[in-house]
Amino acid sequence: MPDPAAPAIILSEPQLGENIGACARAMANFGLRDLRLVKPRDGWPNPKAEAMAVGAAPLIAAAQIHGSVDSAIGPLRLVFAATARDRAMAKPVLTPTEAARRLREAASNSIPTGVLFGNERAGLTNDEVAIADCVVTIPTAGFASLNLGQAVLIMGYEWFKSGNATSSERIDHGAAQPAPREDLIRLFEHLEEELEKGGFLFPPGNRPGMIRNLRSILHRAQLTDQEVRTLRGVIVALTRGKKRNPSPGGR
Amino acid sequence: MPDPAAPAIILSEPQLGENIGACARAMANFGLRDLRLVKPRDGWPNPKAEAMAVGAAPLIAAAQIHGSVDSAIGPLRLVFAATARDRAMAKPVLTPTEAARRLREAASNSIPTGVLFGNERAGLTNDEVAIADCVVTIPTAGFASLNLGQAVLIMGYEWFKSGNATSSERIDHGAAQPAPREDLIRLFEHLEEELEKGGFLFPPGNRPGMIRNLRSILHRAQLTDQEVRTLRGVIVALTRGKKRNPSPGGR
Repeated sequence: MPDPAAPAIILSEPQLGENIGACARAMANFGLRDLRLVKPRDGWPNPKAEAMAVGAAPLIAAAQIHGSVDSAIGPLRLVFAATARDRAMAKPVLTPTEAARRLREAASNSIPTGVLFGNERAGLTNDEVAIADCVVTIPTAGFASLNLGQAVLIMGYEWFKSGNATSSERIDHGAAQPAPREDLIRLFEHLEEELEKGGFLFPPGNRPGMIRNLRSILHRAQLTDQEVRTLRGVIVALTRGKKRNPSPGGR
Repeated sequence: MPDPAAPAIILSEPQLGENIGACARAMANFGLRDLRLVKPRDGWPNPKAEAMAVGAAPLIAAAQIHGSVDSAIGPLRLVFAATARDRAMAKPVLTPTEAARRLREAASNSIPTGVLFGNERAGLTNDEVAIADCVVTIPTAGFASLNLGQAVLIMGYEWFKSGNATSSERIDHGAAQPAPREDLIRLFEHLEEELEKGGFLFPPGNRPGMIRNLRSILHRAQLTDQEVRTLRGVIVALTRGKKRNPSPGGR
C-alpha cells in the first residue's frame, strides 16, 4: 500500500527508458509512487520504460513530465539530491538511512518531500545540487558503480525500512507455535530414560552435566509442537527392537 | 578494499549470465568478492556475465563453480538463505539489517559465512532453505518483484553499512571549515549596523528580538569562512550609494 506522504522521486534528464522503468519498479517495491521526469531524453511516453516497469506500469502512466528541475520540485518543501561524489559546496551530506529518517519525519508532519537523481552519464549538475537542502550519498566500497535504478532502489529501501515495523528476527512457524514447556519436558524425560537404558548417562557423576547439555541443545532449537512429536517418534524408532540394558559404558 | 571475512554469495542454479554479472557488480560496490555458482544454467565461463560485470570482472574470473549447494556451502559455518516468501519451516526470519549484523559479528570471530540466493524463476527450494541457519527476507511493500541482482545489492549494502563508519550527517566543506565565531559576530554587527541605518530595527522595543531572529537564521546556515566574506560583500553591495538615514520606519 503506497504511502501518500512518501517522497517524490525526480529524475533529471534520464536517458534510457529501461532505466526509467527500473526506477519505477524499484519505487513500487518500497511504496513510492510519485515519479517526476525532467526532460527525458527520448521523449515521453517511452515504450521501453513501460516494458521494463512491468507491474509498476501505473507509476509510469502517472509520471509527471517537467521542463525543468525547478518546476518538478517547486511545490516540495524538503528536497535531497542523490550524488555519488562530494561537490565541496558546504552542504550536509546524509547517509540514505539518515535521509530516510528525515523524509519520514517530514512526511509525518505532512511536509511534501522529494529526492532528486541525476542522469546516468553525469549525475546531477552542481546547480541542481545547490537547490537541494542536503546531499544523500550511498556509502560504497572503493569500486562504486551504482546505476540509477540501484540508487533509487537503495533510497526506496531505506524509506520503506524507516516506516516498517518488521522485527529484526521472527520465527516463521506457519501455523505452529513454540511448544509448551510441558511437552518439551516430557521429550527430555523420554530421551533421558532411553539414554539411561542405553548406558549413555555414565558415569553417574557426569549425568547431571550431560543432561543439562542435551536439554540445552533441544531448547536452543526452539521446537514447535509438531517437532516435539517428531523427535519423540525418532526416539521410538531408534530404540525399537533394541536389546535392553547393555552393560554400563557399553555405548 | 574487499574484506577477507566478508560473506560468500552463493547463487543456486542462476539462469541468465546478465544476472550473474549484475550480482558481481552489486557485490563489488559493497566489498564482497567471494562468488560461488551452483550449476549455472548456461555453463561457465559465460561471456554475458563478463560483459555485465564490467569493473567487477575479477569477481567473475575468481568465481567458484560447484555441482551442488552442499559443496558450495560445505566449508561455511553460518549460512543464511535469502527468500522472498515464508516457508512455514520454523526457521528464524531475519531482516537484512539483522542478518548483516550477525554476518559482521561472525566475521569478527573469523567464522566463514555465506548468503544463499535461489534462481530467478523460482527462488530457493525448501530443501535449500532447510540447510541454512536462518532465512533473510527483504521487507517490501505489497508490490514485491526484486530481481536477483537487486536482492544481492541490498544484502551487500547492509553488509557494507554494518561495518561502515560514515557518520549519518557530515558537511561537505571541501577544504573549508565552519567560520570562527568572531568572524560570524563581525558579520552580525555589520548587518545590524546597516539595518540600523536603514531603519529596519524599529521600533526599538522589537530590536533585541529582531536581532536574535536574524542571528539565528545565519547561525543555522553553518557558514564557512568564505561564505562569511561573501555575505559581507553582499551587505556592502546592497548598501552602496544608498541614501543614508531615512526616517525611522521608512523601510
